[in-house]
Amino acid sequence: MDRLTRTASHSYSIMSELVLPNDTNGLGNLMGGRLLHWMDICAAISSQRHAGSVCVTASVDNVEFHHPILQSDIVILESRVNRAFNSSMEIEITVDAENPRTGTKKRCNQAFYTFVAVDSDGKPKQIPELVPETAEEIERFNSAQLRRDFRLFLAGRLNAERVENIEDFLKSVKDAHSL
Amino acid sequence: MDRLTRTASHSYSIMSELVLPNDTNGLGNLMGGRLLHWMDICAAISSQRHAGSVCVTASVDNVEFHHPILQSDIVILESRVNRAFNSSMEIEITVDAENPRTGTKKRCNQAFYTFVAVDSDGKPKQIPELVPETAEEIERFNSAQLRRDFRLFLAGRLNAERVENIEDFLKSVKDAHSL
Amino acid sequence: MDRLTRTASHSYSIMSELVLPNDTNGLGNLMGGRLLHWMDICAAISSQRHAGSVCVTASVDNVEFHHPILQSDIVILESRVNRAFNSSMEIEITVDAENPRTGTKKRCNQAFYTFVAVDSDGKPKQIPELVPETAEEIERFNSAQLRRDFRLFLAGRLNAERVENIEDFLKSVKDAHSL
Amino acid sequence: MDRLTRTASHSYSIMSELVLPNDTNGLGNLMGGRLLHWMDICAAISSQRHAGSVCVTASVDNVEFHHPILQSDIVILESRVNRAFNSSMEIEITVDAENPRTGTKKRCNQAFYTFVAVDSDGKPKQIPELVPETAEEIERFNSAQLRRDFRLFLAGRLNAERVENIEDFLKSVKDAHSL
Amino acid sequence: MDRLTRTASHSYSIMSELVLPNDTNGLGNLMGGRLLHWMDICAAISSQRHAGSVCVTASVDNVEFHHPILQSDIVILESRVNRAFNSSMEIEITVDAENPRTGTKKRCNQAFYTFVAVDSDGKPKQIPELVPETAEEIERFNSAQLRRDFRLFLAGRLNAERVENIEDFLKSVKDAHSL
Amino acid sequence: MDRLTRTASHSYSIMSELVLPNDTNGLGNLMGGRLLHWMDICAAISSQRHAGSVCVTASVDNVEFHHPILQSDIVILESRVNRAFNSSMEIEITVDAENPRTGTKKRCNQAFYTFVAVDSDGKPKQIPELVPETAEEIERFNSAQLRRDFRLFLAGRLNAERVENIEDFLKSVKDAHSL
Repeated sequence: MDRLTRTASHSYSIMSELVLPNDTNGLGNLMGGRLLHWMDICAAISSQRHAGSVCVTASVDNVEFHHPILQSDIVILESRVNRAFNSSMEIEITVDAENPRTGTKKRCNQAFYTFVAVDSDGKPKQIPELVPETAEEIERFNSAQLRRDFRLFLAGRLNAERVENIEDFLKSVKDAHSL
Repeated sequence: MDRLTRTASHSYSIMSELVLPNDTNGLGNLMGGRLLHWMDICAAISSQRHAGSVCVTASVDNVEFHHPILQSDIVILESRVNRAFNSSMEIEITVDAENPRTGTKKRCNQAFYTFVAVDSDGKPKQIPELVPETAEEIERFNSAQLRRDFRLFLAGRLNAERVENIEDFLKSVKDAHSL
Repeated sequence: MDRLTRTASHSYSIMSELVLPNDTNGLGNLMGGRLLHWMDICAAISSQRHAGSVCVTASVDNVEFHHPILQSDIVILESRVNRAFNSSMEIEITVDAENPRTGTKKRCNQAFYTFVAVDSDGKPKQIPELVPETAEEIERFNSAQLRRDFRLFLAGRLNAERVENIEDFLKSVKDAHSL
Repeated sequence: MDRLTRTASHSYSIMSELVLPNDTNGLGNLMGGRLLHWMDICAAISSQRHAGSVCVTASVDNVEFHHPILQSDIVILESRVNRAFNSSMEIEITVDAENPRTGTKKRCNQAFYTFVAVDSDGKPKQIPELVPETAEEIERFNSAQLRRDFRLFLAGRLNAERVENIEDFLKSVKDAHSL
Repeated sequence: MDRLTRTASHSYSIMSELVLPNDTNGLGNLMGGRLLHWMDICAAISSQRHAGSVCVTASVDNVEFHHPILQSDIVILESRVNRAFNSSMEIEITVDAENPRTGTKKRCNQAFYTFVAVDSDGKPKQIPELVPETAEEIERFNSAQLRRDFRLFLAGRLNAERVENIEDFLKSVKDAHSL
Repeated sequence: MDRLTRTASHSYSIMSELVLPNDTNGLGNLMGGRLLHWMDICAAISSQRHAGSVCVTASVDNVEFHHPILQSDIVILESRVNRAFNSSMEIEITVDAENPRTGTKKRCNQAFYTFVAVDSDGKPKQIPELVPETAEEIERFNSAQLRRDFRLFLAGRLNAERVENIEDFLKSVKDAHSL
C-alpha cells in the first residue's frame, strides 16, 4: 500500500494563552517551564493532525529564552510539522509575546520538538510522508534531516558512517548566524 | 570585594510529583511538556539556592524522553548547579519514575538548564562561584564549560577564536557514547 | 481629536485547547461551563486588541450547545470584534471541535459577548471605531446593532422610542432560520 | 407507569467560592468566564439532583455582568430547577458577591441555564416532573415556559403555530422592567 | 468600647464541590488532602464572616476519614464559628458526600479548625464575641473551651493550673462515645 | 507465609513546592489547607512505598501552624512510616519553609497521618512490618503505639481495657513539653 502524504499546512496549529499570576515567578515574568509546557501542547496538536493518531514527545532541541514575557501578556504559539521520518516527525514551534494594551509584539522563541506516533498499545506506528510545497517548507524539510542526525549524534545513536554529516549541521549553524 | 563561593551540594534540590489525570495524554502517559515544567521548577530552586536571588530560565539543552511515565507513578527530580559563570549557571537535572506498587524505579531523563540571576529590576547580577569538591563534581564542572561553548555556538554568540572548541564538545559526546 | 479606527481583522484571535480529564463530566464530555470560560478568554483577547486597554465582560447572549465535545478533542475558538459602540463592543466567537485521530471537525457553537474597555480606575473609556471591510464584516456590523438593542431591551434599558426596533431583531432571527 | 415528581426545593444547591489570583484579570476583577463556569457547575448539581442522572448543558440565556467582583471576595451561587420539560429543565442561578471584611453583599447576576438529562449512552432520558409549591415557584414555573419558547425561537426550532407566543415573552420583559 | 457580638448563624457557610479526576487517587476516591483543603477554605469563610478581617489557620484537630468519596460525587461542606476567644476562634465543619444519581447522602467527616484574625501587618487582632442562641449552639460553645484547653495541652502551652481540665476533656470524649 | 519487613528509610520521601499566588490568602501567606494537601500527598508516597499498594488517608492528628509561609518561599516536606499495624500505618511528616533569597529556613510543622493499604476492591490489606533501626526510629516506633491508642480513644473505638493507656499518652505529651 502506498504511504499516505500530507502537506505542512495540514498540521499548522495556533494557540493563544493569557499569562496568569500562577504562571509567573517572583518578578511577574512567565516561567520558562510553563512556556515549554505550552509549546509541547501546541506541537502535540500538530503531530496528531499529521499522524492521525496519539503522538508522544520524543525529544526537544536546545531552546533559548530571549525576552521576559510579562503577566497579562498574550502568548501566541504556532507550530507545523517540518518533516516526517518513519514513525517520528520534527515539529517547529515559534512563540510571540504580545502586549495588547500597547500593541507591541515580539518573537521570543523558536524550538524543535520531535514526536513519535503510537498505536493503542503505545508502539510506534508509521505516519504519512510530509510533502513540502513552498520554498520555505522545502528549506525546513531539508534542514530537518541535519537536525535529526545531530539529535541522534547527541544521543549516541547516529550510525558511524553518518557521523561526518555532523559537519554539515555545524556548517548550517554557522551559515544561519553568518559566523 | 572577594567573590563569594558555594559548593555544589548547597544547591542540591529534590522534588517528588504524583502523575495525576490532567498531566497525561490520551494513553495515560505523562505529557513531555508537564515534565519539562517540573524540571524547570526544580532547576529554579537550585539556581536560587546558589545565587540567593530570583533567577530566570535562559536556555534548555536537548532533552530526550526515553520511557513512558504512567499515571499514578511518582516522578523524582534531582538538581544541582554544575558551574557558575558570571551571572549565569548550568543546572543538571535527573528524572526518575517510580511505580510504588511494584517498587520499580528507572532513570528517564537527564537535562541541562541555564539560569540567570537577576536583581529586582530584572538586570543580570553576579553570582557566587561554584567550587566543586568531589571527582564527580569536578567532572561536571569541566564539561559544563564545553556545553556552554556549544550553547553559545548554537545561538551564534560564540567568539570566533573559540569556535574551534566546538570540536572538544563533539569529542566529549563521542567519548560519552563510546562512538 | 478624531476617533481612532480599527479593522475587524485587527482583533481576530484564535485559541486551541486540548480537552483534559478535569474539563469533563462523568460521561467524558466537555462541561459547558469550561467552554464558556474559554470563549470568554478568547473574546477578551479580541477586545483588548481592538481597545488597546483592559476590557471586562459586560454580557453574553444566548448560547446553545449542539454537540458533545469529547476528552482528547481539540477545541478551536476564533473571535473578532463585530462593532464598537462608545466604550463597549460586540465580539463574535465560533467554536469548532476536532478529533485529530479521525480528522473530523465540526462547528459546535457561535456566541456573542459584549466587553467594555476600562481605564486603570475601572471606568469605561472610549474605544476606536470599527470599520468593516468585507461584505461579511458589514453584515456583522449591521446585525450587531440589532442585537445590542435587543440586549438593552432584555435588560430594561432600551429607550422607549427604540422598542419598536425589537421587531427588526425578531425579523432578523426569522430570516436567519427561514421561519 | 406514572411519571415521578419532585419539588423545586429538592434541587436547591448552594456553592461558595473564594476569588483567587488566577481567577482575575489585570485589574484584579473576577473574569466573566470563570463566573460562567462556576454557574454551570452549580446548575449541573441542581439538574442532577432533580433528574437523578448525569445532565449536560444545552443552553445559557443572556447573562449580564453588573458589578465587578474583586479578588478575595466570596462568591455565593444558588440554583434550583424552575420547570422540567421532557428530558430538559430550566435552572435559575443567582450570584452574590460578599466582601467578608466589610460585610457588604450584593446581587451580581441572575441566569437561566437549560440542562438535558442523559442515560449512559448519552441519549436524552425522561426526567421527573417539577411540582411548584410556593407562589414564587409557581411564577418561575410559568415564566419558564415563555423563556423556553423564546429559546426555541432564537434557535429557529419553535413550531410555527407558537411563534405568536413570542409576543408574550416580550410582554413579560416589558412588565418585569415596567417599560 | 464594648466588644462587638455576633451570633453563630452569622458565620454559617456552605460550599459544594464536584469531585473531579485530579482530586482522586488511583482508585477513583477523593484524596484526603484535597478534602482538608476544601474544609480549610470553608472554615476560612466562616472565620472572616465572624471577624470581619483576614484570618489564618492556626490549627486543625484530629480528623478521621470514615467513608470513601467517589469521583463525580458532590461534597457538601458546612461550617460555623463555635466560640470566639480573644483573637482566635473555633470553627466546626461537617462534610457530607452525595451521589446525585442515586440520591444517597452520608456524613463523612466532622472537624474543628482554629483560625486567628490578623490585621494588615499580620498581627493578631481582637474579634467580636460569639453569643450562642440555641441549645445546640450553647453545647458547642461550652465544649469548645474543653477542646481549646486540650489543644493548648498538646502544644505544651496550657497553664499548669489548668492541666487538670484535661480530665474534663477526656470525660467529654468518653461521654460522647458512651465508653 | 512470613510477613514481609521494611525499614523506615525505605519509605522516606521528600517533596519541594514553590508557593504560587493561588496558594496564598489575601495577605500573601500560604493557606493552611494547601499545606495539609501537600502533606497528604507526601505521606501518600511514603505509605505506598511501604505497602506496595494504593493507600488511603484514614486520619490526621492535630496539626499546629506556627509560622506564616510566604509567596515564593520553597516548602520542603519530608515523610517516613513510623510504624506499621495490620493494614494501617502511621506516617510522620515535617515541613520546613525556606526563603532561597536570604537562605533562611525554619521548621513550620510536624504532623502524623494514618493511611490504610487497600487492594483493588478498596478492601484493607495486610502490609509489611516496619523494623526500626536507629535510636530515633525506635523512639518513633514506640510512641506511634501511644498515639494510635489515643486516636482510637478519640474515635470511641479503643478497647475498654486499654483506656488506661491514655494516661501514658498524656504523660508522653507532658514529657515532650517538660510540663
